[in-house]
Formats: sequence, C-alpha cells, structure tokens
Amino acid sequence: MSWLDDIQYQGRQLGNRALDRHIRLGVTGLSGAGKTAFITSLIHQLTLGDQPTHLPFFSVVQQGRYLGGRLATMQPLALPRFPYEHNLQYLLQQPPQWPPSTTGWSQLNLTLRYKPGSGMRARLQNHSELQLELVDYPGEWLLDLPMLQQDYQQWSEFCWQLFRQPHRQALSKPFAELLQQTDLNDISELQLQHLTEAYSALLQQFCEHAGTYLHQPGRLLVPGELAGAPMLQLFPLLPEQIVTASPLLQRVTAHYQSYCNYVIKPFYKQHFSRLDRQVVLVDCLSALNAGHAAMQELQQALGLIMQSFRYGPTSLLGRLFKPQITKVLFAASKADHVTPEQHKALTLLLQQLLQQPIKHSHYAAAHSEAMALAAIRASTTGFVEQQGQKYPCISGRELGAIAPVTLFPGDVPASLPDAALFQCHPFQFPALAPLALSMQQPLPHVRMDHALEFLLGDKLQ
Amino acid sequence: MSWLDDIQYQGRQLGNRALDRHIRLGVTGLSGAGKTAFITSLIHQLTLGDQPTHLPFFSVVQQGRYLGGRLATMQPLALPRFPYEHNLQYLLQQPPQWPPSTTGWSQLNLTLRYKPGSGMRARLQNHSELQLELVDYPGEWLLDLPMLQQDYQQWSEFCWQLFRQPHRQALSKPFAELLQQTDLNDISELQLQHLTEAYSALLQQFCEHAGTYLHQPGRLLVPGELAGAPMLQLFPLLPEQIVTASPLLQRVTAHYQSYCNYVIKPFYKQHFSRLDRQVVLVDCLSALNAGHAAMQELQQALGLIMQSFRYGPTSLLGRLFKPQITKVLFAASKADHVTPEQHKALTLLLQQLLQQPIKHSHYAAAHSEAMALAAIRASTTGFVEQQGQKYPCISGRELGAIAPVTLFPGDVPASLPDAALFQCHPFQFPALAPLALSMQQPLPHVRMDHALEFLLGDKLQ
Repeated sequence: MSWLDDIQYQGRQLGNRALDRHIRLGVTGLSGAGKTAFITSLIHQLTLGDQPTHLPFFSVVQQGRYLGGRLATMQPLALPRFPYEHNLQYLLQQPPQWPPSTTGWSQLNLTLRYKPGSGMRARLQNHSELQLELVDYPGEWLLDLPMLQQDYQQWSEFCWQLFRQPHRQALSKPFAELLQQTDLNDISELQLQHLTEAYSALLQQFCEHAGTYLHQPGRLLVPGELAGAPMLQLFPLLPEQIVTASPLLQRVTAHYQSYCNYVIKPFYKQHFSRLDRQVVLVDCLSALNAGHAAMQELQQALGLIMQSFRYGPTSLLGRLFKPQITKVLFAASKADHVTPEQHKALTLLLQQLLQQPIKHSHYAAAHSEAMALAAIRASTTGFVEQQGQKYPCISGRELGAIAPVTLFPGDVPASLPDAALFQCHPFQFPALAPLALSMQQPLPHVRMDHALEFLLGDKLQ
Repeated sequence: MSWLDDIQYQGRQLGNRALDRHIRLGVTGLSGAGKTAFITSLIHQLTLGDQPTHLPFFSVVQQGRYLGGRLATMQPLALPRFPYEHNLQYLLQQPPQWPPSTTGWSQLNLTLRYKPGSGMRARLQNHSELQLELVDYPGEWLLDLPMLQQDYQQWSEFCWQLFRQPHRQALSKPFAELLQQTDLNDISELQLQHLTEAYSALLQQFCEHAGTYLHQPGRLLVPGELAGAPMLQLFPLLPEQIVTASPLLQRVTAHYQSYCNYVIKPFYKQHFSRLDRQVVLVDCLSALNAGHAAMQELQQALGLIMQSFRYGPTSLLGRLFKPQITKVLFAASKADHVTPEQHKALTLLLQQLLQQPIKHSHYAAAHSEAMALAAIRASTTGFVEQQGQKYPCISGRELGAIAPVTLFPGDVPASLPDAALFQCHPFQFPALAPLALSMQQPLPHVRMDHALEFLLGDKLQ
C-alpha cells in the first residue's frame, strides 16, 4: 500500500464512516482475560455462524437479513495482523488447544453484507456493506492513563501502597531493600540500568503471580522498539526518598514526564481516539480463585481502566483526546466454566467490580452494558441426579487432563465477598481446554449473539 | 523530555549546527564488522584517551588544545541509548570479553570541549564546544536501498541469482522446492504465512553461515514492531513463477511496494538524511577466511551499500532524500589480527572491494577515505627470531582459549585473490579475545587517532 493508496484507503474509510458503514471496534482486557478467543470467535461467528438457531439474539441474522461476512480484501499492510487463521488451527488440533495470546497491537478488517431492514436504503439497495475493523490491544495500556493525572511523587506513593499489600509484600521486599541501599546522588548509567532491571524483574514476577493486575508503566514489560530508551529507566523510589530533592529523584522524574508525553499521550491520540466501540473482557473467576486481595486489586485496576471511557467535557480524556467511543461492553469471560444459573450472579459481580450500576452509568457519551459470556464454549451443560434431586453441572476436559469430567464448579458470589469468606471457602473454578470442534460448524458460544447485537445490531439495521 | 523541551532541544541543535558546533556521526557495518567495539572505543578515546602519546595523529590532542569530552547531559530520552557503560564492563571483566552486539538503532551524545586554534573564535572564547551525536545502526538497513530501484520481479531474479551461488545453493534448495510445490492461486493467510516463515528461516540460516552478507528484506530478520504486519510477508518467487500473472504474484508485489514505502523510504527520510558523517566498518579478514564466494558476495554487498553514499543530483538518493553526509570513512576493522606490515595490503584490499580508488571517488558530495584500524587492540606486536632472521608476529589470546599465543597469522592479499588461490591456500586469520585492560588506561587501538582526525579534526580547529 503506497502512501497514495493509503490516502485513498483513508478516503474510502471516511466515506464509509459518513454513510455509517464503517466501524472500528477495540477489544481489550487484562492479560489472560480472553481477548484472543473473543476476537477469533467473533470473526468465526460473522463469517460462518450466521444461522438463526446459532445466533438467535443477533437480530440481523434472526430476521434473515444477514448475507455473510468475509475478511476484507484491504487489510492494513503496515500493522500487525490479528492471526485469525493460526488461532483456528490451534482450536482444530487433536486434542484442541487454546490459541496463544498476543502481546501488542493487532488488527483485522471484515466486510459484512446485509439487507437493510427498512428506510431509504432498503428501497434503493438490495444489499449494504458494513466495514468492521477489529483492533486487539493489551488492557495494560489503559492502566497507564492515570499516570497522566499524577506527578512522579504521587505515582511512587501509589505504587508503594500497592506493593505493600499482603499479596505483594514478600515479592517487593528485595526491591525495597535495594532502593534503601541506593545512593540518591549517584545517577550513573550503570546504577539507573541496574535499578530499572530490578524493577522490571519485579513487575515480571508480579505478572506471573496469580492475582495481580496493576502493572505500571505498561511498556516496561513489553518495551518493543523502546528497549534501551532512557525514559524506560522508570521505577518508583520509596516514599521517604521522594521527600527531598536529589539527583536521582530529578532524573526519574524527567523520565516519568517523557513516558507520559512520548508513550501514553501518543497512544490515546493516535490509537484510542479512533475507536468507535469497545469491548473490555474481565476474568472474574480466576480472580476469585486467587483470593480476596486479588479481587480488590482487580476492582482497583478496572476502576483505572474505566477512566478511559469516562470522557465528559471535564474529564482528562475529554479535554485531551476527544474520544468517540459510543458503546462499551464489559464482559465477564469464561461463563462456560460455571453452570448456567450462575451467569446472573457473575454479571452482578462484574457490575460491582465496575463500582456502579452499569445501567445508570456516569459515562458522558458512551452507552455501556455488562454481561457474562463465553466466546468459545469449552463445556456442555446438564444435570446430575442425586437422591432424587437434580443438580446442574458442566462437562469438559480440564487443562492438561485427557479424560473429560463432569463437575459442579460452585456458586459465583453476586457481590464481592469479604475476606473471611475466602478464608473458609476458597473458590476453585476449573480451567477447561476447548471442546473438539469441527471445521464446518460455527464455534459454540455463550451469549456471543447478545454481544454482537449490542456492538453491531444498530449498524446492521 | 516533553514536546516543548524537544522543540527547544531541536532548536539548540539547529543553533549549534549553524555555528558549526554540532555533528551527527553514523556508524554502521554488516553484522560482525565491529560497530560496538568501534563506538565504545571512540567514546573512550574522546573522554579518557586525550594524551598526545596515545592519539598522536589527532591534531587537536597533539596540539594540546583538547580540553576533554564527556557524555552530554541531554540524551534523547525516547531513543535506545548506546550501552557504553555496559560494554566497558564486559571489557573490564576477568578474563575480558567483547561486548555483545546490538541489533537496531541506538544513539549516544557527547560534548567535546577544546581551545579554538585560530581565527575569531580563538580570540573571543577561551573554549569552544562540539556536540557529537553518535548513531549506531545495522548496515543491513543500507542493503535495502537498491530495492527502491527494482520492481518485485527484478528483485526476485536478483535473489535467486544469489541463492544459486555455490556457497548458498544447498541451503536454499528446500525453499526452492517448497515454492515449486506452491499453488500460485492460493493466497490464503496460512499459505502466505507459511512461505514467509520458511523464507525468514532461510535468511536466518544464511546469516549463521559464515560468508554471506546480502540479506533482503533486512527487516524480516529483525521485524521489531512490524512483527505480523502483512507487508513483511515478502519472499522472492522463483523466476519461472514471475513470468505470468497470478494472485500470489500480485499479492507479494503489493507487499514489496509497501515495504519500499513504509520501511525503506522512511528510514532514509527520517534517519539517514540527518547524518553529517559516516563510518562503514568492514571485516575483510573473516571474509577471506570464509573463501572466494564470500569475498565476492562481500564485494557485491559493499557495492550496494555504497549506493547510499553516492548522491549526486542524478542519483536516486539525491533525488529522494537530500542526504548531507560530507565525509565517509571506510574502515577495515580488526587490523590488530594481522602483523603491522600487512595493514597496507589490508587497506588496498578494502579499496578493491569498494571497486574504485577511494582517492578519486565518484561521490558527488562526500569526501571519503579507506584505512585499516583496530578500535580496541587485542594483540601486541613483536618479532620472533628464526635461524638468525627476524619475523614479525602478534601475541594475543584466541577466543575461547586460556593461554596467550604468539603467531604469524599470514599475509593479507593486496587484491582480491582468484578462486584457485583460496583452494590451495585457505586463509586462517585468528579470532582474538580482548587484552586485559585497566579502568584508568585509555583503550589500546590501531589508528583510531587517524580515524578521529578524518572524522572530527576539521570541526575542532
């Protein structure tokens, strides 16, 4: 694609956008939330799963007006492509496997064809097309936004408050000790690099430790082409070290400001502000497994992520970047890992984690919704009879196991349980492998039709 | 560094440039040519090695006008920083080691202070400063330039001509067979990705095989943030496959054009055109060790690299990017690996590889020079007496060995030897580990003072 093609391509996009036939959908979520499975399923449903029995709540399909979807002939050549076909290969292996997760930004464009339902277009055209751009990016990038509203001192205090939580304290102790022994007048390259590497290793340890969600700065974990850039020499000094001025404090403060200006702002300006709609995936069940502190940190992380969708005229985002996201779907993923009557509780729990009743949202512009779903269903549901009583259950194959099992994974609490409950009743939701799938069959799912209707329904009228 | 600081910084740079007190020096060379050692040594010489006995041919030092150099307080915060301090640590280890090589772009800025020798400035100022920006980048990026002058068909033919050379044929055969079995109507993502991965693996094999220098497209080996972008799905179809139009040919042709527009041109526009002077390092000795085909390919690669410095008004570069490089130093590195009386021959060999007498260069704007040097000397020189005759020799520690050895590595041919000579007289120049170094001593070198004089002397008048 030459720069001329690019301009023409952009021109076409603008044209389609003006005619309401173009939509840019962001899919994000913290690491492990299920972004890859969600996008893979969404593409599969839109290209192969267009039977009314398979997507009953997706109105354009249900009304028989959906003519089909295909990967667009025009993909952005200079951006990483979402590896849809490879992901399907993983799912179709024997035994099936979950596709590997992606780490950065990727995109894939679809063309959806449908019969307009009513209005001028229905009379004039026998079919219309909607261009759908799917954009996958790490939820961790949204966690950097609050850094724009803090100065370095505030950020350091915030970090150490977090690192001193019970589930983080042991891991962060060696780094605290290293800082205590650090000469604040020494700003040699070797010291800066040594401290950066120690902090980066600590973040990596946190990541690998179940139940931590908040990792700042996000790019220290995946530096890409910024590897070795001085502004990534960024770590929180101890609260007692930021009270008085020192050469080291001055240096990391400068790096903090650069990070805000060179990494965070460009992401919002160039990428985020071009999204029309957004899906945020949340894995509540793994957080419940990990305990009370994990649930609290997940709630805190979601609170920070939601700042990206709160862009009234007085918000930081609204003032700086003029986002245009009009719909946000918060989805509790992996709903197939519990029995169906628990889905209601799972949705309520997600709403509580989001700290507000979604229906009465405070978002100035974006309409939002919360639901429990499974992008690619990994279990079948049924009942077991015990002493004349029927109990709901699910059947599936646990990750790493060979034989399938039938189990009742337990109740999902409809609100954030207190610490005592986690003590006496630890949660143990299973991790399931994908079901055996057939190439020709649409991917089994839970409530993907509801998600599609919320995200795309109004654009396929 | 905020965007405002950035503008101020750029402003300062422009100011310094106008007053002739700013210089941007690119250092490049094909993988293994010694870029890391060269830059590390250059910084060390300019910050610690300012004794006249150590740099006798660097006139500002010899005349006692050099007041010293230090790392600039203002480093570009958003660019990878050349890891000077880490490299020194490797050299100061016991036993000393060569620092690891870098893969991408990096930069480090120095401030040099000197007494002006004459003229207005000498009367007005008691010292002047020269801002030196050192830029390290892979020579492989310069090998992409000729792709701008070829279309996809020509490029494919060029590749297969190369791949069918004796020293490449065996490795490239499986890829040729894979292409022969390829359905040219199949442009599915899986096929494109499969062929790309096979080609990328082939390039990697070539790289690991001593004696190959020409790898295109350069970014397929180090994709960075382009990983997964469709335009990197770029491989040469077989000559018989590019005669008639096919969907696959059409697709890879589009990717080729994107690569030219999105990768090659921006590199020259944004990076190359801002360089003032350039060092190109060439490891002739390893090529001699690898044989006749390797020498020929090195000559071919250098021919392509030199197109980047040939920018008269009629050249592609001159028309497109307006470079401003005024001096180019071609340096045969590792001169310490042969005895001193061989340096003359090494320089002549390099000149022949560059295919023209350097002194009567065809460069429209750039003044160029060829010399043999060792950035960090890894041997001591002496003589051995045999039957009353004195023979020159070097002493050093071979890589991987513990004890030092004294050896005569052999004669360097003053011109490209023919194939027959390689058959009956294979070259076996050693690979030496660094000498034991002391923190306080300037790094031992061969002819770094000549290099400094050529590159910086006129700016330190």
